[in-house]
Amino acid sequence: MSDPVKYLLPEAALPSEWYNLVADLPVPPPPVLHPGTLQPVGPADLAPLFPEALIRQEVATERRIEIPEPVREIYRLWRPTPLYRARRLEKALGTPARIFYKYEGVSPAGSHKPNTAIPQAFYNKEAGTKRIATETGAGQWGSSLALAGAMFGIEIDVYMVKVSYHQKPYRRALMESYGARCVASPSTETNAGRAVLAANPDSPGSLGIAISEAVEIAASRDDTKYALGSVLNHVLLHQTVIGDEAIAQMDMAGAYPDVIVGCTGGGSNFAGIAFPFLGAKLRGGPDVRIVAVEPAACPTLTRGTYAYDFGDTAGLTPLTKMHTLGSTFVPPGFHAGGLRYHGMAPLVSHIKELGLIDAVAYRQTECFAAGLLFARNEGIVPAPEANHAVKGAIEEALKAKAEGKEKTILFCLSGHGHFDMGAYSEYFADRLMDLEYDEGALASALAVLPKVP
Amino acid sequence: MSDPVKYLLPEAALPSEWYNLVADLPVPPPPVLHPGTLQPVGPADLAPLFPEALIRQEVATERRIEIPEPVREIYRLWRPTPLYRARRLEKALGTPARIFYKYEGVSPAGSHKPNTAIPQAFYNKEAGTKRIATETGAGQWGSSLALAGAMFGIEIDVYMVKVSYHQKPYRRALMESYGARCVASPSTETNAGRAVLAANPDSPGSLGIAISEAVEIAASRDDTKYALGSVLNHVLLHQTVIGDEAIAQMDMAGAYPDVIVGCTGGGSNFAGIAFPFLGAKLRGGPDVRIVAVEPAACPTLTRGTYAYDFGDTAGLTPLTKMHTLGSTFVPPGFHAGGLRYHGMAPLVSHIKELGLIDAVAYRQTECFAAGLLFARNEGIVPAPEANHAVKGAIEEALKAKAEGKEKTILFCLSGHGHFDMGAYSEYFADRLMDLEYDEGALASALAVLPKVP
Repeated sequence: MSDPVKYLLPEAALPSEWYNLVADLPVPPPPVLHPGTLQPVGPADLAPLFPEALIRQEVATERRIEIPEPVREIYRLWRPTPLYRARRLEKALGTPARIFYKYEGVSPAGSHKPNTAIPQAFYNKEAGTKRIATETGAGQWGSSLALAGAMFGIEIDVYMVKVSYHQKPYRRALMESYGARCVASPSTETNAGRAVLAANPDSPGSLGIAISEAVEIAASRDDTKYALGSVLNHVLLHQTVIGDEAIAQMDMAGAYPDVIVGCTGGGSNFAGIAFPFLGAKLRGGPDVRIVAVEPAACPTLTRGTYAYDFGDTAGLTPLTKMHTLGSTFVPPGFHAGGLRYHGMAPLVSHIKELGLIDAVAYRQTECFAAGLLFARNEGIVPAPEANHAVKGAIEEALKAKAEGKEKTILFCLSGHGHFDMGAYSEYFADRLMDLEYDEGALASALAVLPKVP
Repeated sequence: MSDPVKYLLPEAALPSEWYNLVADLPVPPPPVLHPGTLQPVGPADLAPLFPEALIRQEVATERRIEIPEPVREIYRLWRPTPLYRARRLEKALGTPARIFYKYEGVSPAGSHKPNTAIPQAFYNKEAGTKRIATETGAGQWGSSLALAGAMFGIEIDVYMVKVSYHQKPYRRALMESYGARCVASPSTETNAGRAVLAANPDSPGSLGIAISEAVEIAASRDDTKYALGSVLNHVLLHQTVIGDEAIAQMDMAGAYPDVIVGCTGGGSNFAGIAFPFLGAKLRGGPDVRIVAVEPAACPTLTRGTYAYDFGDTAGLTPLTKMHTLGSTFVPPGFHAGGLRYHGMAPLVSHIKELGLIDAVAYRQTECFAAGLLFARNEGIVPAPEANHAVKGAIEEALKAKAEGKEKTILFCLSGHGHFDMGAYSEYFADRLMDLEYDEGALASALAVLPKVP
């Protein structure tokens, strides 16, 4: 019998609590501010958009928060997810490093997003919400919330960026398979959408516009709330099942990571894998280096400014302190759509400022090359977002080889690429370029950041 | 803690042997005949196409055949696969029946096909094969063999039916991700392809033409062999890991199936789930009813003739006794492409003749409706092929409800639908019709079956 390639936890080992990093931080994160008063927002400000339970989680300071049993019941359809030892990749690289990866692509939607979609739908159901409105770009989040809506009997309205709506009909069909309604944004259903269409009937849409539409619907209807798939504290909280399971599985493997690697767009899968390990370190546990990998074409952590900014393009959201390229910055249209966000989760930004994590940026072609090396050895074709984590892990493994060190590397493979094969087609046809952002546009976007004393 | 929804075997419980149903049959299956001499074929007849180890497995009579360790090493990337209890579906149906399903969609290619692609590539590698040529229609088999080629360092040339090559670029990209070469068939690379193109430059291709191209390449080159993804005995043999794992998992659940349901195209996933249970029954074990579900538009088992016929359209293969609609019969273009085959695996046909299994046929729209009910309760969106098994299982569960019986149902969910969302889009747009085959064409195809005394 060979050494194991994967470590599976029994269903009974599914975490019963989420882990809240805030409890272990040496410095609390800065408050979220009301854009009008510049005073910290209170629960009442957020009540039109989110159910009370999620608002409480957004500001929670306790270390552990119980996962409701109905949420665990749905989690168990695919969780605990497997932890793999990438033995074939190690051999291909000729590295003395041990490479482990936690695979979140086994969820029915193919990514880590259902980890938060399910509890968000549950708390909304408990609060009597009839409908949740949300936005989606490439569709990973929309399809995950659609799944969650089906599980709890909540209507889901997804405002999908119009250009993606037409370019990614398969993602749309997945949402519809779960019974969600998918609307091309800008739409005629909202003031925000109608205003955009009046000015430009051919608008291809943007995530900013889609957020405005979803928020408007939620704010204007008593039975409808809003949901976000990344960035917010409660979203990151829900993703910590990834890291807590990984701790138990690394233990099964008789190992502990020296380095943890995750890709960062809004920051949720990265937080999911990293926060439980970071918390253990902050409580006096083993040291671990944590590396956030972002796209060179949208380098929030490595090139952005740490400042108060809006979460959306239209400036409707509260102000959060985060690494940002400016809410008016439009990143070029590279294929890891899940990483095309102008800001970074405030909690991830905060720990970057505290020096608790490192950040690196890679270009998309080198990430696709890394993803293909991974696929041809480990079998799984990663999502373009996850290719960034693969690239980061491979770089760490090659560094270990150069140094002759037996390092242990853990990364999060956040999703499979079965809905993203169009991007791979482009890559094979040599049509996938390393897009550069416009330095002037970045400077302009940073110049108009909101003024907060 | 609620009752489990899934049953996971540890890696150590991965089967170490395949199960060969032939050893337990009361009557041996009829021989395969040479189309020229009408005499049973010998190993030498098959040697240009297959490595010796696979030819031996094709005619093996021993009950258990060892799975080579390098094959098990790759299997372990996704096996043992989970067995689920469909508790939410049961509740939605209000049935007293317990519904279990074995999920093969967790493989990197998303279906059960790698179970045989991996050993076929392994035995070819052992025999010194440099390249394997094969055909693919919708692309499930081609992408699975491409994966296997990447794992063992064998070049894979896939002749993909031209209309699918253009309609399903994502499947093609998946094959290319694994390093395979994908060629639109008919191509200019073979005599067979050139002949078709000379007669009709705009030919959309067919599975029959693609088989002819792949077989011609394999037969004419010393370093190249051929591989088939279903139908043959050795293919069915490799799939029995599904059923052997399921036996152990049903035991974990403290249950044994009263009914087993599988969808049938060529017959391989059906054989995989059913044969180990059938073998146990034939050796004096518990009784179990076995139901093969096929598409009403290609009703091989329910409307075909049991007779000697060619495996391909062009008449290049040996003659096998099977349920067939005639090798010249062209089924209508419904969306479960993996079930669009004019014949049935000889071994499945044989046990149907022996009265050991039942067969039913359903229309595609009722199968899509069943698949969506499943998706909205269990989370997984099934492949169109697998929807037939879902439909069959639901019908059994509703029968149990009508009869007030606590039946235990087990079915094989052979793959996920993430590459097939175009078919779901058609369904939502009411463009998916229940296609009828042409009765006259069927009669004509059956009238020209080869004459075997």
